[in-house]
Amino acid sequence: MPFRQSNQKTEEDMFRHYRANNVLKGLAATPYDLTKEENLSEARIEKYCAQAGDFKLLFATERVNDDVLFALKELAHEAHLIEKMEAMQRGDVINKIIGYESENRRVLHTAMRDLFMHQNPAEAASEAAKAAKKECDKLKNFLNKVDGKGTFTDIIQIGIGGSDLGPRALYIALKAYQKPDRNAHFISNVDPDDAVRVLKRVDLKKTLVVVVSKSGTTLETLTNEEFVRSKYKEAGLKPEMHFIAVTGEGSPMDNPDKYLASFYIWDYIGGRYSATSMVGGVTLSFALGFDEYMNILKGAHEMDRLALEKDFSRNLPLISAMLGIWNRNFLHYTTLAVLPYSQALLRFPAHLQQCDMESNGKRIDKLGNSVDFDTGPILWGEPGTNGQHSFYQCIHQGTNIVPIEFIGFRENQYSEDINVKGTTSQEKLLANLFAQAIALATGQKNDNPNKVFPGNRPSSILLAKKLDPYTMGALLAYYEHKIAFQGFCWNINSFDQEGVQLGKVLANKILDHIGARRQGKKPDKFPQAEAMLRHLDSL
Amino acid sequence: MPFRQSNQKTEEDMFRHYRANNVLKGLAATPYDLTKEENLSEARIEKYCAQAGDFKLLFATERVNDDVLFALKELAHEAHLIEKMEAMQRGDVINKIIGYESENRRVLHTAMRDLFMHQNPAEAASEAAKAAKKECDKLKNFLNKVDGKGTFTDIIQIGIGGSDLGPRALYIALKAYQKPDRNAHFISNVDPDDAVRVLKRVDLKKTLVVVVSKSGTTLETLTNEEFVRSKYKEAGLKPEMHFIAVTGEGSPMDNPDKYLASFYIWDYIGGRYSATSMVGGVTLSFALGFDEYMNILKGAHEMDRLALEKDFSRNLPLISAMLGIWNRNFLHYTTLAVLPYSQALLRFPAHLQQCDMESNGKRIDKLGNSVDFDTGPILWGEPGTNGQHSFYQCIHQGTNIVPIEFIGFRENQYSEDINVKGTTSQEKLLANLFAQAIALATGQKNDNPNKVFPGNRPSSILLAKKLDPYTMGALLAYYEHKIAFQGFCWNINSFDQEGVQLGKVLANKILDHIGARRQGKKPDKFPQAEAMLRHLDSL
Repeated sequence: MPFRQSNQKTEEDMFRHYRANNVLKGLAATPYDLTKEENLSEARIEKYCAQAGDFKLLFATERVNDDVLFALKELAHEAHLIEKMEAMQRGDVINKIIGYESENRRVLHTAMRDLFMHQNPAEAASEAAKAAKKECDKLKNFLNKVDGKGTFTDIIQIGIGGSDLGPRALYIALKAYQKPDRNAHFISNVDPDDAVRVLKRVDLKKTLVVVVSKSGTTLETLTNEEFVRSKYKEAGLKPEMHFIAVTGEGSPMDNPDKYLASFYIWDYIGGRYSATSMVGGVTLSFALGFDEYMNILKGAHEMDRLALEKDFSRNLPLISAMLGIWNRNFLHYTTLAVLPYSQALLRFPAHLQQCDMESNGKRIDKLGNSVDFDTGPILWGEPGTNGQHSFYQCIHQGTNIVPIEFIGFRENQYSEDINVKGTTSQEKLLANLFAQAIALATGQKNDNPNKVFPGNRPSSILLAKKLDPYTMGALLAYYEHKIAFQGFCWNINSFDQEGVQLGKVLANKILDHIGARRQGKKPDKFPQAEAMLRHLDSL
Repeated sequence: MPFRQSNQKTEEDMFRHYRANNVLKGLAATPYDLTKEENLSEARIEKYCAQAGDFKLLFATERVNDDVLFALKELAHEAHLIEKMEAMQRGDVINKIIGYESENRRVLHTAMRDLFMHQNPAEAASEAAKAAKKECDKLKNFLNKVDGKGTFTDIIQIGIGGSDLGPRALYIALKAYQKPDRNAHFISNVDPDDAVRVLKRVDLKKTLVVVVSKSGTTLETLTNEEFVRSKYKEAGLKPEMHFIAVTGEGSPMDNPDKYLASFYIWDYIGGRYSATSMVGGVTLSFALGFDEYMNILKGAHEMDRLALEKDFSRNLPLISAMLGIWNRNFLHYTTLAVLPYSQALLRFPAHLQQCDMESNGKRIDKLGNSVDFDTGPILWGEPGTNGQHSFYQCIHQGTNIVPIEFIGFRENQYSEDINVKGTTSQEKLLANLFAQAIALATGQKNDNPNKVFPGNRPSSILLAKKLDPYTMGALLAYYEHKIAFQGFCWNINSFDQEGVQLGKVLANKILDHIGARRQGKKPDKFPQAEAMLRHLDSL
């Protein structure tokens, strides 16, 4: 075991040592009362709003006042959040635990979209951007060939976790921008029914298959790849004329004989931050066209630059991060609901669930100390207005308070709408969003206890004009940076995922056990698994 | 305001007054330590299992011992949970708040499937079952005619909340049992893009549209109905030859001139408990065939009877309910994750999120008193193994403990599978499920603090043989009854949803405001909404 390195600077960086922390603790004793007559005023809603890029963040319905906002800004300053964002974007090795064996990697998903104006001059960032550009160029050429032949109408992405959730959420979000006669499908689960279902929907002859695994060793992905390859062979087709690899250079999957094309990713791209690398690039470009994919990257890039903005009032992901810290560490709420009022964002909360919970669901800080405060919340959500007819009962009148991040757009994606009873559906959608934020904040008194709404249930509203590829890219990066800022503030490592290892090790042990059982042996290595398997057998 | 009625019996029924409650509080001070060597033994896993019907519930990985289980059983007894379930199933008026204006309704979703052996003899239940049978017969005849003509290949269900989530979850779960060339689609959100997307996928000529609203007044549903009707008219088709109504008798939608067929639901069927009424029946029967729909009802009916079982060790939904009470009220966990190891159950957690959170997200008891304990948790979840590559980091190493209900099946739905490295995909799926339950429970010690897993993170595992229509029906009812038992135990009304009213009222106020703005008026009735709308305008 390596010796712990002394590192005075980092000690000072510890969350509980910040002075603003004490101020905020004091302020949290009497948080702003949104239920009091006139306290959620027109003037407050007017004022508690930040605008930057194409976004507005409304936070009048959070339980904050000027003192809290000032202290949160101070906390961001004390914790050097902008400097840490700069360090990340220039390619410092920030994915590490000091004094212990850890990944020791750069974190450069921002370089994947640093392809436009004002490029980051730092060497590591610049090299990574160059490498990303090369893959984009390769992809563009590849797609031109595919388009020229006109053979392929469908693409299946085989990947899991970060190689699935982000690309899938973006594909669903941007279906309105899809090229005609182009469809994407996703296989992720090792449940064999997942692959069977998808394969029923496609004509293999006309289908590309992109297999995504950075390590080239992901159990689910390799199993599903073999399954789909076997179907190609059964159909008398050559898999190597259909399969594309997205993997790390030198991984077991980096094998040109097996793939029509290969695209690279690197160890500085975490799976959950990889939607704007080739992990998302191949499928999104195929389905939406290369230019729309570039628009996603442009939007993300603009948000990357906004995250470096030193003026707190313009740095939207930073404000959102600090409001989250207030709700999590000072008002002590366990969960966070992200509720987009846009059906297109149906699976965006599932992506954010990974991005946030895998990044910040940690219990030690970057020095290896157990933290004595709460880190990443449990993030969940469904689109509105659907959720209003589902779990909103609980968020209005349940016994636990759920902070909410609403997301809304001024315009819908398709140009079609209908006017019923004097308003359009899009207006109804937005009226409901605003109504919920106000209702949760102000609550309602009533003589009938069942009609009482306690109120003081905090929310923020992120608004943009329209969910197009550019805005989607920016929205994706907005959350990536919000999450990174919170991790920086807690001084945890948001970029590893040691917590997924133990389950993998035990699953492999059980698979060995099952293998031995199958060969008629009576294995005794894993008695707990044996007991569970016996229960299964007796069904 | 009505006077509070004195009701000694009900007072005694209050959660905090149960004697077992004090015992459990004491036991919760030192819950069973699953991390201790040998504490999660083969014998424990063997023993802590309940079997009934086609299900097994494994709970060795919960933090319980014999004392806790005994006290939970006592609590169930003291709280008269079986008697309350009997009262529900026989049709007592249990949807009420005593002494205040409330819905005052029976709760008879169980009658919807009480069509087979051993029917409930109680008059109200029997009448409801007769009425349900009549609708089923109407549906069967209607489908025979549809089948005979061979005109229709697709069905669109327009509904929201309970008229959407349950039927949708079941349809997705049972796609493997779908009739050839039959597809179902769902429109729920008032977001106009939701309807546009679905309409792009179907040929209106060959499509039925079932509109579902008990009241016949649901904003989203009526708006979407008008939108889809307008598309039929534009295409020169007669909506009344395609549209089907599922609604309450005498509702504004109960109008034979507008619909090809109408099916009834009643005020004793809550939306979130309506999947086995005509709300789910029309679409599921069209897509799967009437016989498979009957199999869903049969499975649900078997579980309804199991929920009346007085032998605690065989009443699976009751055991699950009490384990949930232990985790919620004595170990004080805020959320509950339902993690099915079956891709087919992709949207089942979203259905349960509604069913649980809308039923039990309450803050007053049935006497109108504010509760001083926690009621329904925040329920969320995604299928495994997908989640393992997403939020499992947080559930293993995050700072909040998340109780988990795993669901697994011995066999997959399709007969296809692949053997890679000596095991099938289905075996890999189950090995991962068991590995996760064990890893969460036992944790792991390590010199590297980042590789430490604290363990003692509780879970249960529900196992069945195969997710077929019968098992799906039983699984649906299992959760319905688990939720009802918990509501009975807390003495809250699980069957109303007053908490959704305020948002509706404010949304309508904002819509009036938008309407006035549109006519060039400067409305001043809702200044907060005006400020939000101005922010939107400036985007």
